Amino acid sequence: MSRPKPMSGFPEFLPAERMVELHALRILTSTFELHGFAPIETRAVEPMEQLARKGEIDKEIYVVRRLQGLNDGLQGLDGDGDDLGLHFDLTVPFARYVLEHAGHLVFPFRRYQVQKVWRGERPQEGRYREFLQADIDIVGQGTLADHHDVEIPLVALDAFEKLHVDLGIPPVVLHVNNRKLSEGFYRGLGIEDPAAVLQRVDKYDKIGPDAVAETLVDELGLAPAQAVQCVALAGIATPDESFVDRVRALGVEHELLDQGLADLAAVVRVAERQVPGRMLADLKIARGLDYYTGTVYETLLQGSERMGSVASGGRYDALASDGRVTFPGVGYSFGVTRLLAPILGRGELTSSRSVPTCVLVAVDSEDTRERALRTADQLRRRGVPTEVAPKADKFGKQIRYADRRGIPFVWFGAGEHDEVKDIRSGDQVAADPQAWLPPAEDLFPRTVRG
Amino acid sequence: MSRPKPMSGFPEFLPAERMVELHALRILTSTFELHGFAPIETRAVEPMEQLARKGEIDKEIYVVRRLQGLNDGLQGLDGDGDDLGLHFDLTVPFARYVLEHAGHLVFPFRRYQVQKVWRGERPQEGRYREFLQADIDIVGQGTLADHHDVEIPLVALDAFEKLHVDLGIPPVVLHVNNRKLSEGFYRGLGIEDPAAVLQRVDKYDKIGPDAVAETLVDELGLAPAQAVQCVALAGIATPDESFVDRVRALGVEHELLDQGLADLAAVVRVAERQVPGRMLADLKIARGLDYYTGTVYETLLQGSERMGSVASGGRYDALASDGRVTFPGVGYSFGVTRLLAPILGRGELTSSRSVPTCVLVAVDSEDTRERALRTADQLRRRGVPTEVAPKADKFGKQIRYADRRGIPFVWFGAGEHDEVKDIRSGDQVAADPQAWLPPAEDLFPRTVRG
Repeated sequence: MSRPKPMSGFPEFLPAERMVELHALRILTSTFELHGFAPIETRAVEPMEQLARKGEIDKEIYVVRRLQGLNDGLQGLDGDGDDLGLHFDLTVPFARYVLEHAGHLVFPFRRYQVQKVWRGERPQEGRYREFLQADIDIVGQGTLADHHDVEIPLVALDAFEKLHVDLGIPPVVLHVNNRKLSEGFYRGLGIEDPAAVLQRVDKYDKIGPDAVAETLVDELGLAPAQAVQCVALAGIATPDESFVDRVRALGVEHELLDQGLADLAAVVRVAERQVPGRMLADLKIARGLDYYTGTVYETLLQGSERMGSVASGGRYDALASDGRVTFPGVGYSFGVTRLLAPILGRGELTSSRSVPTCVLVAVDSEDTRERALRTADQLRRRGVPTEVAPKADKFGKQIRYADRRGIPFVWFGAGEHDEVKDIRSGDQVAADPQAWLPPAEDLFPRTVRG
Repeated sequence: MSRPKPMSGFPEFLPAERMVELHALRILTSTFELHGFAPIETRAVEPMEQLARKGEIDKEIYVVRRLQGLNDGLQGLDGDGDDLGLHFDLTVPFARYVLEHAGHLVFPFRRYQVQKVWRGERPQEGRYREFLQADIDIVGQGTLADHHDVEIPLVALDAFEKLHVDLGIPPVVLHVNNRKLSEGFYRGLGIEDPAAVLQRVDKYDKIGPDAVAETLVDELGLAPAQAVQCVALAGIATPDESFVDRVRALGVEHELLDQGLADLAAVVRVAERQVPGRMLADLKIARGLDYYTGTVYETLLQGSERMGSVASGGRYDALASDGRVTFPGVGYSFGVTRLLAPILGRGELTSSRSVPTCVLVAVDSEDTRERALRTADQLRRRGVPTEVAPKADKFGKQIRYADRRGIPFVWFGAGEHDEVKDIRSGDQVAADPQAWLPPAEDLFPRTVRG
């Protein structure tokens, strides 16, 4: 075949970039595990009827059919009669997993899940058709305590702090709001369709407060005074509990508003003490069409706010229900590809070498290759990533092989008169393959500024 | 929704099982990295025309189409006009990746890749529609030295040895053959379609030598004497180079046979010295429809030979070609799901607990939850996976919460009069959250016999 072209919306990385992604994933998953989240994976496909329940997102679903079925004129329906689609998030499959396996789980159940998801969107800047998400959720059986609504962002901020320290990803601010607060406020104003208002307020950052007010009047028929109040609410953002007084000052009253204010204040109060400066009560956060019912989260990179939220989530009163038992949940999703692909694409982060290899064992002649294999094996047994040179070339060529891959050490005279050369400094010393170790910082590839 | 039923052919694990799978994957990937293989991932979809090139496998492909396209009557074709399918192995996407990114890779290129693959097969015992594979390949630009044909099984056997020692997976024997040997032998017998013979010899273990000879005569029109010779060749299996004499004794001559014998002898000779007892020259190994051109590998679990090969591979003279440059390769694929799903399904391996958590910090009352959060944070900073109890229940209930998940330690009096209890022994001692560490074997969940 001729040289294939990249497929728009399906990012792929070179090995040095994939190593950075794996580094980021180790940071995320080890943080999740430190906080007691257990790993699961779900299958890539769900029945279409489950996926399509989420309203407008159905346009973006990739349908999956067996070719054989298509050829048989059966429209590719599965043997079981199910029409399948690729999951577009990890929440819908997780809700199904909880119902399916509830008898084998203990609640509250804390899980993390790192998998690709697919959306058949028109590709555009920052939008992907295949991308990696890393989700954490806590789900209860029947009930789930409110304090988990502050636990989730504390886990998220712990992970982001490590991404900042270890990888140089910018620090984040986690923006938090509560759907009850917004809905109660709108209802207090006499608005009957709070969801429609939320969807428009969601565009606040993109189109600005005046345009939001305009759409509220033009599209929803709100009175100008109501629209002004909605926009005023959306404009409130405080790093502490003072948002409560500012909302009260708008003079709107409703029971649901009281509850939302109290819930959000509880989250912000704890976060302010535990992770000062990292959380903002931001009353314009709406999470568009997502079916959250209480706390909602978005996360912005400081200095790159324009790229939008790189991680978000919230609380569902009913993540899942089997008709008899309801499973409330609170969760958060890291957009791993959304966060890393632009950074890797601009070459801002890369690996110190393109291979894991720390030592290349040179080969004198093809007759002595087995001696090199044994030396390599001795080094590997003590954890040193090692390759044997592919060809008994002149030593200059074998050094070049190492150099082109960033391999720092070349081993000569394997099994006879062992010496190891640091090809960066040119230093060459006698060495015992049963005892020699590289400096710790050379053992594995490191993530470095590009 | 009502309780969903499992979907046949799409295995899913509980957290304790997934932890075992992750343990196995850490063993595999760390072994690959010790041998200098670099990680990549490819997108899940490829153009149908690429996937369908592999002959009969096209029946098993899952076609992927945008729902929106389907609704528009456009048959779901992508904006780019490509019809897409889910990859059914990791070789076809890797070949495409090599061509697409050749300008950014250095050759020989060594990569590993761990991803799900999908096949729309009728589900049956040991067959899955979605399963995990872990592949290693070495690919050259123009040429690739023969010694990589022994390097690949040495890496594979290194990984299997660790799976045996760490997880108790049975030891393996890696069976190896060479397509040139078989093809040369058949051609030396005057047979014109060696591929058709190979496909039938592939059934040797399933149907036995007599039935193979019968199909060779009945279906391919071979003379009985030819069929007897083919079956005699397939019956040869030796742990050393003695297979060469046994083949010679059959009296067949062909140049390609000579080459195949020499190539296979070179592989077996090195393996016999480096990993005695782990490799068998087994001349019935055919790898059915796969497009290998030289060495081929299959791998059997000792004592579970009946489940068939759990990992296999071989050499391609042309893994990929852009018409100008050809990329020969040799590779090997671990059937991770095929290997683990039966063991996990029978409960033979599991985790020592169902959560990563090592310590549960008890909560006296909801008013002091923040003290518990701080203690948990101190423990996590030193790498101890820690949860805070979800409810300020009676201590007996909080201990039960830990016990049901297998969490070994419960921390009392957080930030006031700190004490830690080993709930297995009942021992409770004063402890400093800035200094206390659990015994090393309790820090993380361990894989244990079920």
